Amino acid sequence: MSAYTDIRWADIEAAHARVAPHIHRTPILTCRSIDALAGCSLFFKCENFQKIGAFKIRGGMNAALTLPADEAQRGLATHSSGNHAQAVAYAARQLGVKAYIVMPENSPAVKVNAVRGYGAEVIFCAPNQAAREATLQEIVARTGAAFIHPYDDDRVICGQATCAKELLEDVPGLEAVIAPVGGGGLLSGTCLSAHHLAPNLLVYAGEPEGAADAVLSLRSGRVEKAPYINTIADGLLTTLSERTLRILSRHVREIFTVSDAEILAALRLVYERMKIVIEPSCAVPLAAVLKHPEAFAGKRVGIILTGGNVDLSRLGAWFGP
Amino acid sequence: MSAYTDIRWADIEAAHARVAPHIHRTPILTCRSIDALAGCSLFFKCENFQKIGAFKIRGGMNAALTLPADEAQRGLATHSSGNHAQAVAYAARQLGVKAYIVMPENSPAVKVNAVRGYGAEVIFCAPNQAAREATLQEIVARTGAAFIHPYDDDRVICGQATCAKELLEDVPGLEAVIAPVGGGGLLSGTCLSAHHLAPNLLVYAGEPEGAADAVLSLRSGRVEKAPYINTIADGLLTTLSERTLRILSRHVREIFTVSDAEILAALRLVYERMKIVIEPSCAVPLAAVLKHPEAFAGKRVGIILTGGNVDLSRLGAWFGP
Repeated sequence: MSAYTDIRWADIEAAHARVAPHIHRTPILTCRSIDALAGCSLFFKCENFQKIGAFKIRGGMNAALTLPADEAQRGLATHSSGNHAQAVAYAARQLGVKAYIVMPENSPAVKVNAVRGYGAEVIFCAPNQAAREATLQEIVARTGAAFIHPYDDDRVICGQATCAKELLEDVPGLEAVIAPVGGGGLLSGTCLSAHHLAPNLLVYAGEPEGAADAVLSLRSGRVEKAPYINTIADGLLTTLSERTLRILSRHVREIFTVSDAEILAALRLVYERMKIVIEPSCAVPLAAVLKHPEAFAGKRVGIILTGGNVDLSRLGAWFGP
Repeated sequence: MSAYTDIRWADIEAAHARVAPHIHRTPILTCRSIDALAGCSLFFKCENFQKIGAFKIRGGMNAALTLPADEAQRGLATHSSGNHAQAVAYAARQLGVKAYIVMPENSPAVKVNAVRGYGAEVIFCAPNQAAREATLQEIVARTGAAFIHPYDDDRVICGQATCAKELLEDVPGLEAVIAPVGGGGLLSGTCLSAHHLAPNLLVYAGEPEGAADAVLSLRSGRVEKAPYINTIADGLLTTLSERTLRILSRHVREIFTVSDAEILAALRLVYERMKIVIEPSCAVPLAAVLKHPEAFAGKRVGIILTGGNVDLSRLGAWFGP
């Protein structure tokens, strides 16, 4: 679109045409009682109902389908213990090729089983970033598999951009949109779709206080680390990349940080009032809207609900007694 | 329609026209991975997304709207600790009249608060059937409020019938439908809509083993009590009435009983795979389908998901760890 990214609108349109046969056009729900609490009109884009239970399939699928056939034949690889792992595993199965997923050896069995359920090979590594990357490099060198990064990749960002594209196409007159920020792939895609389809739309993000790197990075203009990591929003622990920081710096109006207590209160509201299952990471934007009513008062606001992959055995810890 | 009921199809059509402005036409969801487990094609009518979080608003609202204005002015009354209480409270608020809800004094605070949240007056009584009815009679005598029974009432049955009516209108070619059975209001309405719109449709019901009165009543032809009451499906503890038994005897092909373990397994599937919040009572029909694949193999089957009003503090007990 300009100096801060190589992505053009045509790339996002092409990504949408490419992934559409493989994904759901997810519904957009509204909830009068949450609107009353928030003081604005919220439109929830329900990616918890998406294939694999999360928006990540959009980016993973687009990257996989963009590979030349001979490269794709050698398989797909990534390191992730979260929804991106399932996205790459699912995309590989759709292409009929192998998936190699590097996961920390302390990953919960429920996540390992989900990835294996899509037919992927799981390779365990020590639970640190250096071991992840070294193990991935070794796999790629040995198999020739194509590495699909969870967010630092234009093909992935274009895929994630299709989510806000659908939201803006389906809801007329939106005035603001808010998404969570982890590595910034979804938020970058949201920025680019908003910039093209609704240039005056205000783009906000929610970030956990216990993984607050993006808010610092936008302030300093450099990729910063979070001062500390301690949050239930386990899908948002990663830091921005130079690539995502450049896009966010251009388009994000503000990042609101929220505490785990605020995230849990928003999570509870969604279960109680909307009767849908979402992950804690997914409740972060609603927590931000409820914390900062002044930014949203009376507006039509799109919220991206990112995913619903929950280890049900944790619900007791989140909701009492 | 004939000797076993005074309800005519025109009554159900009139009920639908009457309640439609006050309720949601709820969505019908499908889930490929649950279909694969069940060996049939399931169409879930999502009344957990209904106003007040349950189908009961259909019957409560229809009864309230059928009252002559001077009767309605004196208010509405019922005894219930469940979703019917919320339905009557909500209907009264819509009419701008008072609601008097008799609840056992040991009702969970979350249910009492939900009813009060709709502006109803809660009157406590001792936790037994005799006290409930005596307290209700006293309220009706004192206030002149109109009693709306949860299921032994043609107006309520006509309202509940609108749920299967919508399901059959929205999903072509259904071959079977299954609903849970407590007092038989929803199931009676389902029978009548099916009988009119799709005379060859097979109507089934699911019932908890720990509240298995309906299966006995259909066998003996008399209203029976359950041999014992012990189930997590707390919305299905009531027995049939003569009125509902007559309708079910005519139209229900079979009632399948399921254990609490089977109900919990079905509940888990719905949370995990469909990402929606439902009550245990609501998982009973899916549990029955999974237990009796021979009855449904290869068929297009409608399932009524009745409600999603969950005390979130109980999720830990249901799903571990």
